[in-house]
Amino acid sequence: MKRLATFAVAVACAALSVPAAAQFAKPEDAIKYRQSAMALQGAHFGRIAAMANGRAPYDKAAVIANAELVATISQLPWSGAYAPGTEGGKAKPEIWKDTAKFKETSDKLVAETAKLLTVAKTGDLDALKAAVSSTGETCKSCHDAFRSK
Amino acid sequence: MKRLATFAVAVACAALSVPAAAQFAKPEDAIKYRQSAMALQGAHFGRIAAMANGRAPYDKAAVIANAELVATISQLPWSGAYAPGTEGGKAKPEIWKDTAKFKETSDKLVAETAKLLTVAKTGDLDALKAAVSSTGETCKSCHDAFRSK
Repeated sequence: MKRLATFAVAVACAALSVPAAAQFAKPEDAIKYRQSAMALQGAHFGRIAAMANGRAPYDKAAVIANAELVATISQLPWSGAYAPGTEGGKAKPEIWKDTAKFKETSDKLVAETAKLLTVAKTGDLDALKAAVSSTGETCKSCHDAFRSK
Repeated sequence: MKRLATFAVAVACAALSVPAAAQFAKPEDAIKYRQSAMALQGAHFGRIAAMANGRAPYDKAAVIANAELVATISQLPWSGAYAPGTEGGKAKPEIWKDTAKFKETSDKLVAETAKLLTVAKTGDLDALKAAVSSTGETCKSCHDAFRSK
């Protein structure tokens, strides 16, 4: 199980090793990419939240599978998809002004989703509820600060 | 390394175990989900293709990381995101008419991307070029048959 978590980190690190400038030919490509990552992340996080909150039957294996995806995909947008020159979409200009805060918030999301995966594997439903709530708050605080309505 | 490939399959199988009907509240959600999966897949496959074809410096670790993502994400759209009732977007009606051919083509993509990952890990650049070409042809044949221009 530890190897699977290591895998997610390895994927992200290798992705990070690609120079940002080389990743997207046009700003629109970066915008589409980050919006796609957010959409997939949201869909799979939503499935976990539904199970944690009793709107769908709890299924430990499905929670883990969804949490693996969330932990992996949550790491993708931060290395290039918000590079300078990719302004647009729903992204607020604050992303490129308050880069320290943006990095802090995105780092927090990556940490929260890694924790969510760890908790998912324990099968502890109360801990899962808490991790879902905490991860959801991280999503929301970043959206409030950096995403236009 | 074998464990990593097993991981991708495990994620997909667990995802497949979630009933399709429960996955998307609205058809638009399914359309957004599958388009997002295609966009991420295309972006990461494009990075591999660029390295395989000499448009970007070859980096074995980056090829593997991108291939892990492609092998995982390529499995996501087929369990629910094209369920009956989710017609729309660029999806041609043929998807819901010729379901056997659609399944055959999507199964082929999953097999091709798994093979691409295996080849990526060998570090054999000629084999990578062949696998990229073969995977790209599978993308194209499915798009030609099932995606509107």
